[in-house]
Amino acid sequence: MDMLAESLRKIYEESNVDALFIEQDFLRAYLTGFSSTDGFVVLNRDFCTLVVDSRYFEAAEKALKGGMICVVEGSYKTALELLQGKKTLGVAYPFTTAARYLALSEAGFSLSDCMPALKKAMLFKSEAEISLIRKACEIAEDALLALLPELKEGMKEKDVAGLLEYKMRLLGASGTSFDTIVAFGENGSVPHHETGDRKLSFGDPVLIDFGCKFGGYCSDCTRTFLFGDDKKHGDFKEIYAHVLAAHELVKEKLVAGMTGREGDAIARNYLESKGLGKYFTHSLGHGIGLQIHEYPTLSPRGEDKIENGMVFSDEPGVYLAGKLGVRIEDSVTMKDGKVVSFMNKTERNLVIL
Amino acid sequence: MDMLAESLRKIYEESNVDALFIEQDFLRAYLTGFSSTDGFVVLNRDFCTLVVDSRYFEAAEKALKGGMICVVEGSYKTALELLQGKKTLGVAYPFTTAARYLALSEAGFSLSDCMPALKKAMLFKSEAEISLIRKACEIAEDALLALLPELKEGMKEKDVAGLLEYKMRLLGASGTSFDTIVAFGENGSVPHHETGDRKLSFGDPVLIDFGCKFGGYCSDCTRTFLFGDDKKHGDFKEIYAHVLAAHELVKEKLVAGMTGREGDAIARNYLESKGLGKYFTHSLGHGIGLQIHEYPTLSPRGEDKIENGMVFSDEPGVYLAGKLGVRIEDSVTMKDGKVVSFMNKTERNLVIL
Repeated sequence: MDMLAESLRKIYEESNVDALFIEQDFLRAYLTGFSSTDGFVVLNRDFCTLVVDSRYFEAAEKALKGGMICVVEGSYKTALELLQGKKTLGVAYPFTTAARYLALSEAGFSLSDCMPALKKAMLFKSEAEISLIRKACEIAEDALLALLPELKEGMKEKDVAGLLEYKMRLLGASGTSFDTIVAFGENGSVPHHETGDRKLSFGDPVLIDFGCKFGGYCSDCTRTFLFGDDKKHGDFKEIYAHVLAAHELVKEKLVAGMTGREGDAIARNYLESKGLGKYFTHSLGHGIGLQIHEYPTLSPRGEDKIENGMVFSDEPGVYLAGKLGVRIEDSVTMKDGKVVSFMNKTERNLVIL
Repeated sequence: MDMLAESLRKIYEESNVDALFIEQDFLRAYLTGFSSTDGFVVLNRDFCTLVVDSRYFEAAEKALKGGMICVVEGSYKTALELLQGKKTLGVAYPFTTAARYLALSEAGFSLSDCMPALKKAMLFKSEAEISLIRKACEIAEDALLALLPELKEGMKEKDVAGLLEYKMRLLGASGTSFDTIVAFGENGSVPHHETGDRKLSFGDPVLIDFGCKFGGYCSDCTRTFLFGDDKKHGDFKEIYAHVLAAHELVKEKLVAGMTGREGDAIARNYLESKGLGKYFTHSLGHGIGLQIHEYPTLSPRGEDKIENGMVFSDEPGVYLAGKLGVRIEDSVTMKDGKVVSFMNKTERNLVIL
């Protein structure tokens, strides 16, 4: 992804410092479009300089040639040299270590937090970023479709998670975007269930919450199935229908300019009207990008407005403690004022495996 | 793993503060023996209190009942309440964010870095920790043995990495301890090669550097093979024999009380005597524990002494740029004054697949 000079200039100016000093993997990737496990970015008014060691230098130079971005081979010391003469420095307080904060302070720099400026820019995804997220979503859905016919009675939750992750890797993912959740039966009632040794039995609900990374960007998807219908699923089916209705209602009613709180309320009010409000124990959604949890926040406390170019999850859920849980989640974007889903391959209607 | 009260007391006293405030996953796991993705630990003279939210409370209480460790359900605010009346606070500067450092400073605490005290304790592994590392090593080796018969001409590096990771998952690993490196042919000459699309051909050297996590603890292993012998491997075989000799020499000659520098020199001097010193471009090894890179450091600059109970890697390598690379690595421990390897299942002699 090419970060336009205009965008970099805006982040620089918003930060109101002599230079930004960035060393977190995902923020370096955001500012330069180049991924590496080590390195530093120094952003000033005219140049965005990526400092990487010999492992990455050749590849970075090749990828970033031209424009406002320079590549220099070196270390932390090299990056410090680029800061000569600078007095005020922006670093990302939520991601910089206290050790680095103190070292830079002791070196005489006056520090401030540039994360608000970065956050503001990262809320809006470029076309290039959208393409990578779309691809990460496609891989996730294709992997799920390849997984389903292989589910067998007796498989453990963690075996299913491992198999799904392997399929995402084979389809081109660089890894998962978070620890895959596979919950069988009553385990689905714990929203962040830790995937374990529970074995799959006939009639079990199966909740799978998963995603992968492609080109650094994340996907996030949840589907809930029935592994065979043992005819005891009256409650489950009713709840499923309501969760699905809440999920689809968000897609229909959420428009650009609404706040995250208003978006969340679309699903929450609907579920409340069905007597299920108190079982919807988490937020409707979160921003998705280089990190799996970004902004905006769609929750009762989400004051950010949802605007064109933002990417987020639509994931209502209902959980009956110790009994069952249903969650249905798509990664979506706001486009031309309306919600557009990245998930077009897998079924959202109840599937009985 | 149960952390003995004695150990906690020692860390507390070494830190020389009223309380320690810890929020990093692996450090929380170290102090309490309980793994979670969120939470806080407050350690004072008499109690080590783990604060976790409702997702983890029940499991944590069950696991940690008794002894010096208490479990409390709550959030950051709850943890702050436990600090009432404390003035000096130890936090881990290399892992705490600048945002947290500033928030705690503004709340009136006088902060200092407790990482030196933690590092000192973490250098020495308990029997319980050793057992988990041994299991992580067994899983890694078993997965490699299951992988080798499945290598086929035309497979991509990343497919092989995905398959190996899947096999580790099936054998009980919770995940990888770092991004698996699979390097075919000339790619082996880059010590931190990024696993990619290179396809396996007859006669290729195959370098695999991998490891998994079990119970939070890491394993680390590297093996280099030949995928068929195309009779053009005179250089490769000679280099392989020298790297293996260097690897085994470390196991034989490194004894408790030597510094990391002296350990590194055993391999380095040997490779230098064979004219290969300049191609051994990294350190001999690093500590292994909850993190894949811990202390001690076995390098020309390693001043830590290697003592009984430490766990580290023995991984000499030789790299001819653009041509080939050989690295042979075991995870090992110092026991009764001698090096004992955790890797007893896979061959270190050259295997031709």
